[in-house]
Amino acid sequence: MTESLKDAVRRAAALAIEHLESVERQPVRPKRDADSLRAALLLAPPARGCDVDELADRLASVMAATPVTISRRFFNQLFGGADPGAILGEMVVPVLNNSLYTFKVAGPHVLVEEALIRHMLPFAGFEGGDGAFTPGGSLSNFVAMLVARNEALPGTRERGLDGRVGVIYSSAEAHYSVRKAAGMLGMGRQNVRGVPVDARGGMRPDALAEAIRADRAEGRVPVMINATAGTTVRGAVDPIDAIADVAAAEGVWLHVDGAWGGSIVLSERHRGLLRGLHRADSFTWDAHKMMGVPLTCSVALFRKPDILRAHLSEVATYLFQADGDRLNPGTRSLQCGRRNDALKLWCGWQLHGDAGYARRIDALLDLARYAAEAVDADPELVLAEAPQTANVCFEVPGRSSAAICERLYDEGLAMVGTGEVCGRNTIRLVCVNPDQTTEDIDALLAAVKAVAASLPAEDDAA
Amino acid sequence: MTESLKDAVRRAAALAIEHLESVERQPVRPKRDADSLRAALLLAPPARGCDVDELADRLASVMAATPVTISRRFFNQLFGGADPGAILGEMVVPVLNNSLYTFKVAGPHVLVEEALIRHMLPFAGFEGGDGAFTPGGSLSNFVAMLVARNEALPGTRERGLDGRVGVIYSSAEAHYSVRKAAGMLGMGRQNVRGVPVDARGGMRPDALAEAIRADRAEGRVPVMINATAGTTVRGAVDPIDAIADVAAAEGVWLHVDGAWGGSIVLSERHRGLLRGLHRADSFTWDAHKMMGVPLTCSVALFRKPDILRAHLSEVATYLFQADGDRLNPGTRSLQCGRRNDALKLWCGWQLHGDAGYARRIDALLDLARYAAEAVDADPELVLAEAPQTANVCFEVPGRSSAAICERLYDEGLAMVGTGEVCGRNTIRLVCVNPDQTTEDIDALLAAVKAVAASLPAEDDAA
Repeated sequence: MTESLKDAVRRAAALAIEHLESVERQPVRPKRDADSLRAALLLAPPARGCDVDELADRLASVMAATPVTISRRFFNQLFGGADPGAILGEMVVPVLNNSLYTFKVAGPHVLVEEALIRHMLPFAGFEGGDGAFTPGGSLSNFVAMLVARNEALPGTRERGLDGRVGVIYSSAEAHYSVRKAAGMLGMGRQNVRGVPVDARGGMRPDALAEAIRADRAEGRVPVMINATAGTTVRGAVDPIDAIADVAAAEGVWLHVDGAWGGSIVLSERHRGLLRGLHRADSFTWDAHKMMGVPLTCSVALFRKPDILRAHLSEVATYLFQADGDRLNPGTRSLQCGRRNDALKLWCGWQLHGDAGYARRIDALLDLARYAAEAVDADPELVLAEAPQTANVCFEVPGRSSAAICERLYDEGLAMVGTGEVCGRNTIRLVCVNPDQTTEDIDALLAAVKAVAASLPAEDDAA
Repeated sequence: MTESLKDAVRRAAALAIEHLESVERQPVRPKRDADSLRAALLLAPPARGCDVDELADRLASVMAATPVTISRRFFNQLFGGADPGAILGEMVVPVLNNSLYTFKVAGPHVLVEEALIRHMLPFAGFEGGDGAFTPGGSLSNFVAMLVARNEALPGTRERGLDGRVGVIYSSAEAHYSVRKAAGMLGMGRQNVRGVPVDARGGMRPDALAEAIRADRAEGRVPVMINATAGTTVRGAVDPIDAIADVAAAEGVWLHVDGAWGGSIVLSERHRGLLRGLHRADSFTWDAHKMMGVPLTCSVALFRKPDILRAHLSEVATYLFQADGDRLNPGTRSLQCGRRNDALKLWCGWQLHGDAGYARRIDALLDLARYAAEAVDADPELVLAEAPQTANVCFEVPGRSSAAICERLYDEGLAMVGTGEVCGRNTIRLVCVNPDQTTEDIDALLAAVKAVAASLPAEDDAA
């Protein structure tokens, strides 16, 4: 048995290396439609199995057809690039295969999580607080909303919502996961207020206070304010400190969704963008975005010590048999069986240290500023706004941003997407891969212009 | 950059192989307490990073101290062993790093998921139904409960629960995730009925029908019946067909939690245990348990086509820009960014085929029967009951099961845990690793007896 496992490990390494080399040769894979892929690849699970040579061939075919996210031509999402430390850690996880619910079966990995959370809490100003790894930013926001709901509407966990209406306040440009979670939590999507934003995309504290008062006047219970640190399209950071004033005055839970921009707390130069974060009650921080850890690696942090257990623990004598709750993270998780998402982050942190991550954040934000200046200096391009973090939104006047992005991908030049800024559909360039250089930015902008020139003009391209 | 990534891949493979060899030499790692591990390992993320040699050393130290779950001496959880096909697939995931929300960035991996779900649905009798990968069985149960809640209490997603009380029916021996999810969904943990079980641990349909009628009489709304296919401790399968009669008569959503035993549908010999499954509305099936895929790999299946989107989709023009909802699984997921949990299962299925998985299930259930017969034939041991699936619960009369399990681990003989059966705390042996042989069972039972003999007698050892 061990021999076949060792063989599998060696084959995985060979395929991974072949993939890395192919990315260097071809940083954007040819675009393929679903039907052609279905026809070309043997996707259906078979009645009878194949041998491992054949499996490796089939897997190689799937890998060769996979859109490349780790190359310097990928600007499409809030993740990108590849980190050697994190990849080293992630690749050994399947042969370990520990479930992170108990110390008995996960041992030091429980302590790896503990060390990471303890180390991350002070960056949020939450020394001594609580925290948990979750499978992604949406579920980190969800667990924060769950705790906020139960705190604002006592008895909900045991008895249910019983007619009380709780309201969530989030900016009109916040991530959809907040509205989705309100639907999941039984609070109702329509009880999420889309608080108006200012010209820079930040939530308006005056409008927030007004919305809270209006709900209170009608008997609804304000449950949580969600401030965003790095909105999805514009990278805007809500004015957390001013929002914290409202939260304190109104006695409402303050959550900061830093799924995208939360990692900025690692940078001494830039952490002032999140001023007031230490006054929040909870904080979502995705390490799989600006920190370059493979998907997914998200942490929900809480200011109050040991708060998660009260909202999540269950009695399960067949599972939690030893070592006490503190060492059994299953008592403070949304999940029961849980994969090890922490080891990759731990490996990345060992390799880079706080200092390396700070340099990384600085480099990303510098690159975004470079891109914005290059756009702004170019008479053929229009910058939507100066970037606040790592998102650069711009247009080619008279040309459809969506058509440009599609053509860039069709021609194998780059993967990049669009986003709406102040009613205009812009090209959203995301600087999240520190291997990208100013030359990569120059090349992208040149490609955008060349592609745009080949497209028909539109009256109002937005 | 590519060179350092290739180096990381090679080091990961070397560490993984070293780990596999060490497991062969030492199938149970010496037990370590948390304080000694904290003192021995460099766990805290450092201010300054280290080089990759040092990182590999630190990682190796953590790996060496990690409890081994893949060896033939591990009987402690509902997972175990290691599968070459699945490990091959899982190890390449981090260098691909696609988020499974859109076809644009995940390409063929969306189709891999589609092919797997299409292939799995008929095993449940849900041809043409819907399905989604989730991060574990608890969240598969959660998403089924979410859909059932919204269907039974229309308007909940938009307006919230507004005073209506929904009730969930689950057996007294079902997994805790159902009660936990009721708390999360705003329905209240106390609105989960622990329906009494019969002597074999199966939910009593008569008691179920009575509980539903009692709730209806008091104005509460029955939302979902959760039948379990493979309870955590006893491996009991609720009488799904008889429960489906009640569900049909009462018009209540029927969910089958097959997180543990769901994979039995792969076996022609044993799938009769789940008779009536095709009448259910939803089904949780974890591939990371009986199918041996690394953690986590769970699927929630639904009988009704295209049902998930109505309960989970959100408008997000910055994300869902192309290819239509069908090809963008983010529109039917609890998550936004989502790691690729499907590729490992796909690789396992290519290697084993339906036929190989059927043989695997048969082997596991045969091994459990062997173990039960060996216990039953041994005058020093008492079998709690004949196993229904792959759990074998037994005692050494006059000795504490918990103390025996602890001593087995202390002495490096085996990892195994306890579970309560009919008020007795038994040793719960789980047969989930097909590499285990009858010799491994014999060795475990001999170790249990030797250890028990060294322990003091107790009046009532339970």
